[in-house]
Amino acid sequence: MKIEVFETKERVLADNESAARETRALMRERGTLLINLMGSPGAGKTSVLSRVIPALGEFRIGVMEADVDSDVDAKTVAALGARVIQLHTGGLCHMDADMTRRGLDRMGIDGLDAVFLENIGNLVCPAEFEIGADLRMTVLSVPEGDDKPLKYPLMFTIADLVAVNKLDTAPIFDFDLAAFKARVLALNPKAEIIPISAKTGEGCAELASFLRSLIEKRRRGE
Amino acid sequence: MKIEVFETKERVLADNESAARETRALMRERGTLLINLMGSPGAGKTSVLSRVIPALGEFRIGVMEADVDSDVDAKTVAALGARVIQLHTGGLCHMDADMTRRGLDRMGIDGLDAVFLENIGNLVCPAEFEIGADLRMTVLSVPEGDDKPLKYPLMFTIADLVAVNKLDTAPIFDFDLAAFKARVLALNPKAEIIPISAKTGEGCAELASFLRSLIEKRRRGE
Repeated sequence: MKIEVFETKERVLADNESAARETRALMRERGTLLINLMGSPGAGKTSVLSRVIPALGEFRIGVMEADVDSDVDAKTVAALGARVIQLHTGGLCHMDADMTRRGLDRMGIDGLDAVFLENIGNLVCPAEFEIGADLRMTVLSVPEGDDKPLKYPLMFTIADLVAVNKLDTAPIFDFDLAAFKARVLALNPKAEIIPISAKTGEGCAELASFLRSLIEKRRRGE
Repeated sequence: MKIEVFETKERVLADNESAARETRALMRERGTLLINLMGSPGAGKTSVLSRVIPALGEFRIGVMEADVDSDVDAKTVAALGARVIQLHTGGLCHMDADMTRRGLDRMGIDGLDAVFLENIGNLVCPAEFEIGADLRMTVLSVPEGDDKPLKYPLMFTIADLVAVNKLDTAPIFDFDLAAFKARVLALNPKAEIIPISAKTGEGCAELASFLRSLIEKRRRGE
C-alpha cells in the first residue's frame, strides 16, 4: 500500500516537473518574473507583500493567493492595487505546477512585470513541488524559532531568498539570527537571507531592492 | 492524472481509518490515553509539553516526536523524564495511523498512562489523517494571527482541544482572542479552548487539569 503511494507521487512529480518547465519558458518569453512565496501559517507572507508591492510601485504586479479556504489575504492585496486572483486548493496542502499554470491563465499575465504566488502556509509540502518559479522566496518569522532549518531542511535547501520577518520581536523570542543564518547556509550556501520587519518596515527597502534587480533583469530579457 | 491522485488518496484514507480504529481499541484495552498534538511550525508544541509533563508528574507519560528531520525536540522532552521515541517521516508532512502504530510498538506503551504524538508542524495535512487518538489537541500561537481558523478550517473543525499559546505576546501582535474563539466555535461548537503561555506558565495549570481528567477517566476504563 505504501509503495503505491510513493509510485503515484513519483508519477505526479514527473508530470509536475514538465508543467513547471513550460511555465518557466512562458514567463521568460513574456518578460514576467514568477515568485513562489512560501512560509508557515502566520509567518507574514501577506504582510511582506503589503510592504513590497508599494515599494515596487514602478512595476505592474500580480498576486495569486492560494488558500485552502477564505479570501482574506486576496482582499488585503487587492487594496494595494495589484492584480489579484484567489485560488482555492480544496484541502490540498500545496500548489503544484498545473494549478499554478491554470491560475496564471485565469488571472492573465499581460502587462505584468512580476507575479507572486502566495502558497499555502506550510513548511513541508510546497517545498516539494516546483511550480516553475524564477525565485523561491521563503518567509520565516522570528516567533517560529531559529531551529526551523534543522526540522524542515528541504524548504531552506530550495529557497533562493529567505526573508526573516517580525525582526522587531527578536528580543522577546530569544531568536539567534546568526545561528539561524548559519543553519540555512549549511544547507544552502547560495541562499540570500534578508532580515525584515513588515510591521516597522525595517529591511523592507533592501528586500524590495533585491526583487527590483531581478524584475529589471527579466524585463531586459536576461 | 488528477483523478488518479484523488483515488489513491481515498484508498489510503480508507486503510488509514481501519488502522486508526485498531489503535483506538488497543489504547482503550491498555488504559492508555493517546493525544495527537498538532500545530504550525514554531507554535510551541514542544514548549507546551515541557509545561504539561511536569504538571502531570503523577502519571507515566510517553512522547513520540515526529519530525521530517532532526531530534532537537526529542532531546528536550527526554530531559523531562518522559519515555521518548523520535520518528522520522522521510519528507512526509504528517503522521498516518500505520506510522503511529509502528511508533507505539517500537516505543512500547507498557505502564504508560498517556502518550503524546507530537505531529509534524503543519496546519493542513495532519488534520486529514486520523491516527486513532483519543484527543486531538491543536496548539495555535498568538503570532500566527487570529484569522487562522478561516484559512485552515479543517484543523480547527477536528480539534477537541485548542491551546492558544504565547498569550504573553497578545498585545504586541494585536491578537483578538474573542474573535479567534468565535471563529473556532463557529466551525466546532464543542471545542475546548484554553489560552496559555508556555513561557510564563499562565493557563498551564488549567490545561494540565483538563488533560488529567481525561487520563484518569481512561485509567478507570471509561
